[in-house]
Amino acid sequence: MRTKALEYANQNQERFLVELEEILKIPSISTDPEHSADMRRAAEWMAEQLRTIGMNNVQIMPTGGHPVVYGDWSGAGKSAPTVMIYGHYDVQPVDPIQLWTSPPFEPTVRGENLYARGSSDMKGQVLASLKAVESVMKAGDMPVNIKWLIEGEEEIGSEHLDDFIKDHKELLSCDVCLNPDAGLIAPGKPSICLGLRGLAYFELRVQGPSKDLHSGGFGGIVHNPAQALAELIAGMHDKNGKVTLPGFYDKVRKLSKKERKDFARLPLKTKDFLKLTGVPALWGEPDFTPAERLGARPTLEINGMLSGFTGTGSKTVLPAWAMAKISCRLVPDQTPEKTIKQMKKYLKAHAPKDVTWELTYLHGAGAALVDRDTVGVGALAQALETVWGIPPYFPRGGGSIGVVVQLQKHIGAESLLSGFGLPDDDAHSPNEKLNLPTWSKGIDSFIHFFYNLK
Amino acid sequence: MRTKALEYANQNQERFLVELEEILKIPSISTDPEHSADMRRAAEWMAEQLRTIGMNNVQIMPTGGHPVVYGDWSGAGKSAPTVMIYGHYDVQPVDPIQLWTSPPFEPTVRGENLYARGSSDMKGQVLASLKAVESVMKAGDMPVNIKWLIEGEEEIGSEHLDDFIKDHKELLSCDVCLNPDAGLIAPGKPSICLGLRGLAYFELRVQGPSKDLHSGGFGGIVHNPAQALAELIAGMHDKNGKVTLPGFYDKVRKLSKKERKDFARLPLKTKDFLKLTGVPALWGEPDFTPAERLGARPTLEINGMLSGFTGTGSKTVLPAWAMAKISCRLVPDQTPEKTIKQMKKYLKAHAPKDVTWELTYLHGAGAALVDRDTVGVGALAQALETVWGIPPYFPRGGGSIGVVVQLQKHIGAESLLSGFGLPDDDAHSPNEKLNLPTWSKGIDSFIHFFYNLK
Repeated sequence: MRTKALEYANQNQERFLVELEEILKIPSISTDPEHSADMRRAAEWMAEQLRTIGMNNVQIMPTGGHPVVYGDWSGAGKSAPTVMIYGHYDVQPVDPIQLWTSPPFEPTVRGENLYARGSSDMKGQVLASLKAVESVMKAGDMPVNIKWLIEGEEEIGSEHLDDFIKDHKELLSCDVCLNPDAGLIAPGKPSICLGLRGLAYFELRVQGPSKDLHSGGFGGIVHNPAQALAELIAGMHDKNGKVTLPGFYDKVRKLSKKERKDFARLPLKTKDFLKLTGVPALWGEPDFTPAERLGARPTLEINGMLSGFTGTGSKTVLPAWAMAKISCRLVPDQTPEKTIKQMKKYLKAHAPKDVTWELTYLHGAGAALVDRDTVGVGALAQALETVWGIPPYFPRGGGSIGVVVQLQKHIGAESLLSGFGLPDDDAHSPNEKLNLPTWSKGIDSFIHFFYNLK
Repeated sequence: MRTKALEYANQNQERFLVELEEILKIPSISTDPEHSADMRRAAEWMAEQLRTIGMNNVQIMPTGGHPVVYGDWSGAGKSAPTVMIYGHYDVQPVDPIQLWTSPPFEPTVRGENLYARGSSDMKGQVLASLKAVESVMKAGDMPVNIKWLIEGEEEIGSEHLDDFIKDHKELLSCDVCLNPDAGLIAPGKPSICLGLRGLAYFELRVQGPSKDLHSGGFGGIVHNPAQALAELIAGMHDKNGKVTLPGFYDKVRKLSKKERKDFARLPLKTKDFLKLTGVPALWGEPDFTPAERLGARPTLEINGMLSGFTGTGSKTVLPAWAMAKISCRLVPDQTPEKTIKQMKKYLKAHAPKDVTWELTYLHGAGAALVDRDTVGVGALAQALETVWGIPPYFPRGGGSIGVVVQLQKHIGAESLLSGFGLPDDDAHSPNEKLNLPTWSKGIDSFIHFFYNLK
C-alpha cells in the first residue's frame, strides 16, 4: 500500500506545513534558561503529535536537563525490525537578531522556502519523519516497529542524553536508528552521511588585574588580558593551519587511498564553498582537500570572544579579563577526554605568569564512522534513489551528533544519517530556512524507506 | 583675606558635599547617545553653579558634540593675570554594572570615601575648583581674573574641543590653565604632573564569512575571523612587550639621565603597583622601570574585543566577524597621525588574504610636557606644600588629556595639571570613589593658589 501512503502525504501537504509552522512558533532555545517554559511547550507539542499519529506509551521523560519525548508502536510484531527515529525539539539561539529578515519565531514563506529558527535544524526534519510515519500508519500496513527519541539538548551538546540512553537500554533497544539531522550534500543530491566529527567545547578565561583599569594609568606595566588571550589563541594554530595542542594529531586515523577517492568524487568544489561562505579565499591544511578537511580532519575554532568595552564609541579601559569559547571538532580516534588534557597541557606551557587562566570544559562527544553495508543503509539508499532519480552520495559530516556515538555505545545500534536540510539553510545563522519542495520529497523518501525494510 | 576664604570653606563643607552629590546624581555618560538629555542637565547644572558663585557671561556653548560651559570674572583688572579653570562634566560608562556595591549614580558615603561614577574623575575636582573660587569671591579679594572651560567630551577624546578652542581664541585667552584632572601620585603626596601621554584610539574589524556559519559545517576551510584577529593582535607586541607597528619608536624622545633620576625618586614601587592592580606580576619593556613605562614610554592596549557567541553556555558558531578596540598611548614626539599610518602599514603587511579588515580611527591627541619653571607651577607648588606639609612630586601621567595639547597649540597657555584624585579611586572602574579629606584639602590648596598668584 506504498501508493496509498504516498497519496495520503500528497493530499495532506498543506496541513503538514501548518503543523510545522505551529512547532516553529515555539522559541525552544535550549541554551537560554529564560526559555525553559518554551522548552516544555515544545516537548508537549511533540508528545501530542506522537499520540495523534497513533503511537503508544507516549511520555515526556525527565533527564538531568531538558526532557526527552518518547513514544513507540509495536504493531508490526516481534519478527519485524524496530526502527528508532531520533530528533531534537530544541533550536539554536537567534542572535544577531537584527540580521533576520522576518522574526525567527514567525515562520514566513518566501518563494519556495520557509524561514524560521529550527526550520531546517531540525524541526522540519522531525516533522518529515512524523508525517512519513503518519502516512504509512494511515495506509494501514506499517511494516516495522517504531520508537521515537526526541531530545531537547542537541544544540547544547546532548549533555544528559548519554545517561538517559544508558538508563533506558531496554526501552530504547532497536535494530537501527533513523537520524534525519544530517542533510543533502547539495540541492538535488540526496546523501547518507557515513561519518561525523566529534566535539570538545571549552570556555577559556584569562584574568589580568582584579578590576578594569584606566589604560593610561596602568598601560605598559600590566599584561593586558585581551592581549594575553589573543597570544594564546594565535599560538593554537601554526602557519599551515595545523592545531598545535600537544599530541592533537597522534590518534587521528590516516585516510586510505580509497577514502581519498570517495572524498574526491563528492560534489564539493572550492568555488561552491566560496559562494556559500562569502570569504575571499579558503583556509586550512594545504595537504588536504576542503572536503577532507571538513569530513576527516580535526579543527580548533574560536566560537566567541569577549573582553573589555565593546559598545559604541571608545573607553580607555585596560580590561580585567578576557574570555573565549573554543571548540575542537574531533575525528576517529580522538576523544574529548584526551583533547581536554591536550588543551590544558598547551595552556600550562604557554600561558604567561603575569595573568591567571581558567579552562572550563562545557561538553563534547566522540567522532563516529558508520558501516555502509547494512540493510538499513541499503533500504534508505534505495528510497532516496527512487524519489530523486540518482543514487545517494556518501559524504562525511563536519558536525557532531552526540546521539550517534551514544546509541552505538549503549544499544549497539547504527544510525542512518540523512535528512533534507541544504548546505545554504543557515542552520545556526540568521534567516534559517527550509526548502519546501525538498522537504516534501523527504517525506516521500521516508515512506519508501519503511516499505523497503519489509 | 586668605584666612577668611579658608574659614568660609571650612564652615560650608557640608553644603559643598550636598552640591557635589547633586551633580553626581546626573548620569552624564558622554559616549552613550541614550544619555544626551542627562548631558544637557549636567551642563545646565554647571552653568547655574557658575552664576551662583558670581561669574559673568555664563553660557552653554554649542560644539559639534556635547556643549561647553563657559563663564568668566574679570574684576581683578587688566593688570592681574587670568587663570582659566578647566573641567569636564561627562563621565565614563558604568559597566560592568553588577560589580558596583552601591548604584553608580546614587552617591554613597562609606567611611571617608564618597562612591559614585564621576566622583573622582572629575566632578569632584570641578567642585573643588568651584568651591575654592566661591570661597575667595566671598572673601571679597579675588586677586586674579577667572575663566571657566567645562567640556562634555573628555571621556570620548574631546573630539570637538580642538575646533571650539580654535574658534574662540580671544574669549578663551588666558595666562595659565588650572587643570585638576590629574591627581595625587599617592595618598598624602601632592603632585603636579609635568607630562601626559597622547592617544590614538582605533576600532579594528576583521570580516570572515558573510554570515555566522556552523562551525561543524565549515570549520577547517574558513579562516576564523576571531582567530585572525587574535593573530593580528598577538603580533602587535614582541616577546619583550615592545610594540611592533613599523616605525612606532622612531620619534620617541630618549630619556636623559636627569629624567631617569626624577623617575627613580617617585614613590612608585613594584609592590604598590601589584597591590593596586591585583596582577601576579608586572609586565612590559624590561629596560625601563614601571614609572618610566607609565610616564615616558608609548603603549598599545586592547580596550575591548568581541566576536561570535559570548552568552551563557555554548554555540557551535564560526563567527562572521571579530572586533577589537585598540589604543596607543603616545609620548613626545609621536603623533596620532603617524600612529594611524603605522597601524595601517602593520595591518597591510600582516592581515591574511582570506579575511578582510577595516580600521576606524576614533580619536586621539598628542603628548604633552609642561615647563616646570613658571609662576603658575611655583604658586601651585607652594599652595600644595602649605596644605600638605611636603613639597609636591613632579610625575608624568600615563593618561591623555587632549585639552592640554590644544590650549598650548591655540592659546599658548601652559596647563597646571594637578587635582585630588588618588591612584586607587577606580576612575574608570566600578566603585569609583573620592576621598573626602583629600578633597577638602584640595579646596584649601586652590584657595592658597589664587592668593599665591597675587
